Amino acid sequence: MLTRIDHVGLACRDLNAKIAFYESTFGLTVASLEVNEAQGVREAMMQVAAGPGGASYIQLLEPLGPDTPVGRFLERRGEGVHHVGYGVANITAALAAIGASGVRLIDQRPRHGSMGAAIAFLHPSDIGGVLTELVQQAPVGDGTAGAPS
Amino acid sequence: MLTRIDHVGLACRDLNAKIAFYESTFGLTVASLEVNEAQGVREAMMQVAAGPGGASYIQLLEPLGPDTPVGRFLERRGEGVHHVGYGVANITAALAAIGASGVRLIDQRPRHGSMGAAIAFLHPSDIGGVLTELVQQAPVGDGTAGAPS
Repeated sequence: MLTRIDHVGLACRDLNAKIAFYESTFGLTVASLEVNEAQGVREAMMQVAAGPGGASYIQLLEPLGPDTPVGRFLERRGEGVHHVGYGVANITAALAAIGASGVRLIDQRPRHGSMGAAIAFLHPSDIGGVLTELVQQAPVGDGTAGAPS
Repeated sequence: MLTRIDHVGLACRDLNAKIAFYESTFGLTVASLEVNEAQGVREAMMQVAAGPGGASYIQLLEPLGPDTPVGRFLERRGEGVHHVGYGVANITAALAAIGASGVRLIDQRPRHGSMGAAIAFLHPSDIGGVLTELVQQAPVGDGTAGAPS
């Protein structure tokens, strides 16, 4: 079902500083820089590799304010890994199968994620404390989400 | 420098239960099951995908006892993401470059990791709270680490 590690999402306090760090220390480049108001973050996707199943990224997340999911995470845990995102070919089918297995779905239906992807989060309490995200990447050249309406 | 997300390392209390969970819920299979006495863990590598730069894994880590790095992590943080491992083509060159950039190296020289890989950890305090590992995977069919002596 999982086609690749799509990204690791890292909570940070200063997005510009972290972008500069990952550029200079690890030689990564910014593939996308976005504000996602619905999720309360300003974020950068730093491309690590591109394989046949799609690209992989480090996703740097800076909260838009303290009363956001990432803002509360920073207050509680400090900077670090916020979630892990896995690629799937068909997010609607994957959500149905995972929900049927008993894992609680934070998102019952896919919503809009980075770079036009369709995404959905699964409940960390059911997955050993790991906030887990499914990602169906948008077709290349398609700037809109592939989520079914 | 980074060729792919090699793996995410997840700390867990019951390795067998987590293997069964990732098999049944996400359809993953165990690529390797090892005890690493030096790191104080029993671990499973669950293969997510194989691309041209090498495979990617979820690494499930169960501590051999409470007074181990993963045992202390579980006590302090509970189950969750323990570290992120990135693939590199030449770990010795990568360590030299990263050390020169000012990031502290936990391992000055590569050591033996999962599945015959050469690995080295970087200090999380210098990387936004993320315990970061470099991984030079062993050549296919080579059961020994590619680390220089």
